[in-house]
Amino acid sequence: MCSVLTRIRPIHRAVALSLRLGANTEGSSYAATQSRRLSPGKNSVVDLQRNARFYCSRMAKTEGLLFRQLFEVESSTYTYLLADTNTREAIIIDPVLETIDRDLSLIEELGLKLILAVNTHCHADHITSSGLMKKRIAGLKSAISKFSGASADILLSEGDKIRFGKHYLTVRETPGHTDGCTTFVSADESMAFTGDALLIRGCGRTDFQQGSPERLYKSIHEVIFQLPEDCLLYPAHDYKGQTVTTVGEERKHNPRLTKKLEEFVKIMDNLNLPKPKKIDIAVPANLLCGLQD
Amino acid sequence: MCSVLTRIRPIHRAVALSLRLGANTEGSSYAATQSRRLSPGKNSVVDLQRNARFYCSRMAKTEGLLFRQLFEVESSTYTYLLADTNTREAIIIDPVLETIDRDLSLIEELGLKLILAVNTHCHADHITSSGLMKKRIAGLKSAISKFSGASADILLSEGDKIRFGKHYLTVRETPGHTDGCTTFVSADESMAFTGDALLIRGCGRTDFQQGSPERLYKSIHEVIFQLPEDCLLYPAHDYKGQTVTTVGEERKHNPRLTKKLEEFVKIMDNLNLPKPKKIDIAVPANLLCGLQD
Repeated sequence: MCSVLTRIRPIHRAVALSLRLGANTEGSSYAATQSRRLSPGKNSVVDLQRNARFYCSRMAKTEGLLFRQLFEVESSTYTYLLADTNTREAIIIDPVLETIDRDLSLIEELGLKLILAVNTHCHADHITSSGLMKKRIAGLKSAISKFSGASADILLSEGDKIRFGKHYLTVRETPGHTDGCTTFVSADESMAFTGDALLIRGCGRTDFQQGSPERLYKSIHEVIFQLPEDCLLYPAHDYKGQTVTTVGEERKHNPRLTKKLEEFVKIMDNLNLPKPKKIDIAVPANLLCGLQD
Repeated sequence: MCSVLTRIRPIHRAVALSLRLGANTEGSSYAATQSRRLSPGKNSVVDLQRNARFYCSRMAKTEGLLFRQLFEVESSTYTYLLADTNTREAIIIDPVLETIDRDLSLIEELGLKLILAVNTHCHADHITSSGLMKKRIAGLKSAISKFSGASADILLSEGDKIRFGKHYLTVRETPGHTDGCTTFVSADESMAFTGDALLIRGCGRTDFQQGSPERLYKSIHEVIFQLPEDCLLYPAHDYKGQTVTTVGEERKHNPRLTKKLEEFVKIMDNLNLPKPKKIDIAVPANLLCGLQD
């Protein structure tokens, strides 16, 4: 616990304590996932039998976890609500300004106590509702990567644990789309929230906000793809109506990430995507945790 | 088994056999759920501790089940893909014409064998892809309620079982939005696909296609609300980015269904909704199982 808190600015220490933000004390997580790394399979389809445990027993391994996936249609953003069904402590990942009323209404109806609004990174396509949520929920804290350049109550580092009730998510730094991109991994590594690093059959763009295809490739291959093959991946966006994928699927079927680094960089450097409509208002707002005043 | 097959037209008998469409042989399902019916709670929030078992153990109870929720943005339709991870047999619920390529691509990548495309009812807002899917996948069968007025390989009745590998969904008739509306309930009653009968904090409209608010109210209260309080409900549509709800939540928070019948009818008779844009092409097409030629 102390090792994390000493990494947090003194002003945030009490806040982190109250949120029970803990250090990764196992220390062996990376080595363990390294040993699970698989050589590319011969078949183009995902081995479902191998993955049967995953598809069926995930929820049993995380008993007492409430999980909701929510969608904001204008920016195609997924917001995730997770809660401990016993203590009712809840966290929300990547909440969007436009859907704050829907989200707070659901939280109230479910009788949850929202303790943390966390962003996977400083978004360029929408404004986070974390700032406004803080105004509407007493005691609510915000969190984002210390490398995001954004202000928040808690600045997250590699290995930090975001706790709610008996559950926690581990912070893994996955830069490349932005410097401050993080992936949040459940305790049993059965689910991960990948933000804009890995998308379903895609990945975040790398042509603005400190974007670097080389760093993104490294983050995905050395962090996300080291998770168990059957780990469910929940992205920050999807533009095709897909809701979830797995490490195994993306390792086999992601049209960009299955390429070698050199080719990946070439693809990313030639996407020629239009500038996000809201970037000029979203980024400055999100750097202040969504508070515009 | 025979009791179902005798209810199916002879021409469909072999098809039903091949799909292992079985009868509800337990017979006690309705009585059992009746006994679980709860009196309205004093609290406005859902009892999460009571529901803790559900949120956590659902997947363990249905070991070897692959489940995907997919979204079609134009009509805000949810399509569901379910498969047995061992036999790879899969079914798809409410597939949409516009997203057929996405869906078939996913099925191929996952190495699934799609055996049935089933519609919860004859949709008025989009054209089903079940007809076109049958042309693209050898052996694929279509299914819909016998009361839908639509043609399909298999016409479903109350209590029929839709089997894929070791899993099955039970057909429950829930008319009111249309005459042929069905809800598909998983074997352990931990999840149900409610079509347009019950939507999240809403319900299907009742102002066209044999719509009847009285019948819908009865269907929801006497069938869907008799499922376990913690049963996850997956609707055919959502217009607010919500993905799932539970029986307990809807019993407490559905703004229409928590009303008495008389008031519900009044609400439904005064919605004054615009006619669905595609109704004049969708309904005739869907009556032919989506085949337009």
